[in-house]
Amino acid sequence: MNLIYFNGEYVNDKIAIDPNDRGYQFGDGIYEVVRVYNGMLFTAREHFERLVRSAAEIQIKLELTVDDYIEICQHLITENQVTDGLIYVQVTRGNALRNHIFPESFKPVTLIYSYDSARPVEGMDKGVKVITLEDIRWLRCDIKSLNLLGNVLAKQQAHVGQAVEAIQVRDGIVTEGASSNVFIIKNGTIYTHPANHLILNGITRIVIKRCAEELNIPFVEKTFTPEELYDADEVIISSTSLEVTPVTQIDDQTVEIGPVTRQLQQAFKEKIYPAS
Amino acid sequence: MNLIYFNGEYVNDKIAIDPNDRGYQFGDGIYEVVRVYNGMLFTAREHFERLVRSAAEIQIKLELTVDDYIEICQHLITENQVTDGLIYVQVTRGNALRNHIFPESFKPVTLIYSYDSARPVEGMDKGVKVITLEDIRWLRCDIKSLNLLGNVLAKQQAHVGQAVEAIQVRDGIVTEGASSNVFIIKNGTIYTHPANHLILNGITRIVIKRCAEELNIPFVEKTFTPEELYDADEVIISSTSLEVTPVTQIDDQTVEIGPVTRQLQQAFKEKIYPAS
Repeated sequence: MNLIYFNGEYVNDKIAIDPNDRGYQFGDGIYEVVRVYNGMLFTAREHFERLVRSAAEIQIKLELTVDDYIEICQHLITENQVTDGLIYVQVTRGNALRNHIFPESFKPVTLIYSYDSARPVEGMDKGVKVITLEDIRWLRCDIKSLNLLGNVLAKQQAHVGQAVEAIQVRDGIVTEGASSNVFIIKNGTIYTHPANHLILNGITRIVIKRCAEELNIPFVEKTFTPEELYDADEVIISSTSLEVTPVTQIDDQTVEIGPVTRQLQQAFKEKIYPAS
Repeated sequence: MNLIYFNGEYVNDKIAIDPNDRGYQFGDGIYEVVRVYNGMLFTAREHFERLVRSAAEIQIKLELTVDDYIEICQHLITENQVTDGLIYVQVTRGNALRNHIFPESFKPVTLIYSYDSARPVEGMDKGVKVITLEDIRWLRCDIKSLNLLGNVLAKQQAHVGQAVEAIQVRDGIVTEGASSNVFIIKNGTIYTHPANHLILNGITRIVIKRCAEELNIPFVEKTFTPEELYDADEVIISSTSLEVTPVTQIDDQTVEIGPVTRQLQQAFKEKIYPAS
């Protein structure tokens, strides 16, 4: 059994969640998934700064600082001997008798665990299939909350359709994937949805933006339609676990993997392994 | 400690939820809250038929039938000596290592417990204050799911504003309350939002419709605007716990409690206590 961090303690045992945890009855909590490469945390500070923002948006007062989270993650990596893996961090509003209204005082419940996970080399190399689907999620997708049923249903529909991702379309605009950001490349320019309340501002998205700037590839945060998606020269989806993954099929339409994708993948890899 | 039903057993002890319960990490589950009056279940069949529908909509295969749920509730009422109370029933997709995609096979986790709760006599008598708020929830509000963060945030905002409910407004249309349905009465006719994907079709809403029919009060399922809400002769919110509660203040605007509300309250009471 892996070591787990739960409410201030490191435990080896199976932990028990209280049925009155508001995470369980309301999805009243937030989370992050952080990458570990070669036993090292990747963009951990960005992830935990986003956790702090998510918490503030739903008025959960975190008991830990960004540095605390990083320290706990480092400890789990060492103890669990994680080389390539992911760390899951979740904070809920805590335990209280069921009532929509916040309890007068509450102690957040924090759960942090690690697991092994290889880089998605095959998908990054050969590309993946995606489907498009109506975006039925709430209007605060910028908060990384535990209310993930819309994402789950979309992801499942993609899976049934032998696809790895469901591209969300709201009011005729491509927003993002069910658990990724979406980019199109047209005439050498990268386009992606602006980081507003309709998408999660992915940490990988931010790194890709940085890579594009370093490579002098124009990076434009502007909405686009499903037609522009179909018509793109190259299409990419990105997330902490997908990294920079090219799309080769959207519904029944095929897309080529192109040079901008390969440049971004190479630049991203250099961020992961700066010494190499 | 009350008796609780958990995964096929009646337990007196504190129960432990698995941290990998998909209800905890995705809100991947559904629920119902059923009323107990005088030790008797009220409209239990309607509630559990809706649970069956919610489960089907998110592809959870329930292990219990409507009759099973009713039998379990009856047992809890007897053992816990509930006179006036509520029964909470929750079913999640079960435990699995974190992945948006459904596990290949899964065993739902069922939690049922009862608690005492008096009828909301004061609010029903004197009326309550509500606020209006932008509806930011997802587009499948007809599914009674555990993804309740939008409802929680709205309800909290109402609470901070000394109101009991947050009336949701989407694209200039009043949909429902954060945990209730909304009705306006204008020139003797009751109006409420149609039971589509934007609202939960409340069981109390259905009973009110039945009462209106019996009283020969026109009941029209048609959308209305916040302006029509402000301008109504009478305004009602309804839910399993609120029953038929008149609204006397909407934001800064006052409303009178009127005769249609009182007729509906009386008719509703006769459904609760058919012998009286």
